Amino acid sequence: MQYASFLAPNGSETWGVVIDEVAHDLGPSGLNLAATIRESIEKGIFGTDLDLTGAPTYAEAELTFLPSLHNPGKIICIGVNYRAHQEESGKTGQTAPTVFTRFADSQMGHLADAVKPASTTKFDYEGEMALVIGKDAWHVTEEDSWDYIAGYGAYNDFSVRDWQKAASQWIPGKNFPSTGGFGPYLVPAADLGDVNELTLETRVNGETRQKASVSDLVFTIPQLMAYVTGFTKLNPGDVIVTGTPGGVGLFWGEGGLLNAGDVVEVEITGLGILRNTVANEIN
Amino acid sequence: MQYASFLAPNGSETWGVVIDEVAHDLGPSGLNLAATIRESIEKGIFGTDLDLTGAPTYAEAELTFLPSLHNPGKIICIGVNYRAHQEESGKTGQTAPTVFTRFADSQMGHLADAVKPASTTKFDYEGEMALVIGKDAWHVTEEDSWDYIAGYGAYNDFSVRDWQKAASQWIPGKNFPSTGGFGPYLVPAADLGDVNELTLETRVNGETRQKASVSDLVFTIPQLMAYVTGFTKLNPGDVIVTGTPGGVGLFWGEGGLLNAGDVVEVEITGLGILRNTVANEIN
Repeated sequence: MQYASFLAPNGSETWGVVIDEVAHDLGPSGLNLAATIRESIEKGIFGTDLDLTGAPTYAEAELTFLPSLHNPGKIICIGVNYRAHQEESGKTGQTAPTVFTRFADSQMGHLADAVKPASTTKFDYEGEMALVIGKDAWHVTEEDSWDYIAGYGAYNDFSVRDWQKAASQWIPGKNFPSTGGFGPYLVPAADLGDVNELTLETRVNGETRQKASVSDLVFTIPQLMAYVTGFTKLNPGDVIVTGTPGGVGLFWGEGGLLNAGDVVEVEITGLGILRNTVANEIN
Repeated sequence: MQYASFLAPNGSETWGVVIDEVAHDLGPSGLNLAATIRESIEKGIFGTDLDLTGAPTYAEAELTFLPSLHNPGKIICIGVNYRAHQEESGKTGQTAPTVFTRFADSQMGHLADAVKPASTTKFDYEGEMALVIGKDAWHVTEEDSWDYIAGYGAYNDFSVRDWQKAASQWIPGKNFPSTGGFGPYLVPAADLGDVNELTLETRVNGETRQKASVSDLVFTIPQLMAYVTGFTKLNPGDVIVTGTPGGVGLFWGEGGLLNAGDVVEVEITGLGILRNTVANEIN
């Protein structure tokens, strides 16, 4: 099942499931099973068999997508977590995951503009797979970790490289408005099978820039879950963005970085295609 | 005026002002001018002349202090922002502020335990001054920046050094529960005069470890406001923790780091004394 957060054609903020390009409204303007996907996770509704009878329906093409989780409490991002990206960035030999954060208001949905700040000349993409927490998680073991994951979605951790590298800590380059693409769908873990078999591909104007199997993650999903819940308590709706493969624009060579009009797609098997077009910031 | 967030003697979560060691309850269990200090800032009540008539009062000694802002949207922390701390940590010559973040649930109030995680041998203090945002702030100029600051308080950015330095990004070592001490008071900017004249001092079991003037900040408060609002939108109740002086435990030499029972105080002129006692994590 593909869940999405969106504005209905009448402009109201809601969520639902998308089946065969038809959205069934389960949120406030529809069956009102919960206010948001986050609340549907908290209530134990997300990923269960749902009776869609009576839900208003809209053509998917009429939706304005929001970030799949637009109100997470914590967005934890993992850096340099694929071997090829470690090599291209000169950061091999790590003994612990690299962890940084995003604020929720840096996110945008599928088909929304990725906004290139006026203050940068180095705007870049990072295709990633995100996981969403299903229940309170603290000191989770690797073995138990899968039980704490509600679902998965595609993420584009657009990065403002000059701001990211202006000092040792990356937060400024990772938190500009409309730089965290999340969507189009959130898919329940139980519907996906073994996520290690999923393939992630990032394309810029149709050209493949990144391609990797989730099984190529240096720190695996259980290792990330154990590490992150070793220092902070995670709650339903929190997000871990698991890292990007090799092939980012910064190391691609001439023309690798992004400019207004570039169309960036992140496709992950079973999770759909996240598409954002780069637009210049308007002040 | 000294504002505080606290549990009233009957256990209810509220806030108020403390005058001559007497708290006047302005929150939900009192005059109910706003639900929280954050809301009092949003409503434009914070820092104005208040009629305390009819407010329930409690002896300050009966309060359970909460973090001065316990529900901020964003907590932005600045690293290595005093010359002496840059020198002791070998990080001189920076051309941009070092920015990392805390989650709100890593905070605790005045007199609460600072919890040393079971998973560390390197628990440390960092006395700092925090500022709280008073109104929506985006692309603020240095010149205008003072207008966006509602108030100030003392902060102790307790740091788990082994987790902080396990990889390039510091987030894990800065986000364990009960490691961000904030309080006891939040003081309106207008009551303080020139904050550059304030002195910050950190003591461990009475021994002075850090002592500096706010005027020693490498990146000044206007520079920090301009830089931070250059990449993320700040809102009322958001917090910037401005950095720590030289003298942290890691570079103090033998016995510099913290153990259970150590009493750590951060005193800033006009902002009171933030006192936390180190306790071992109980699992």
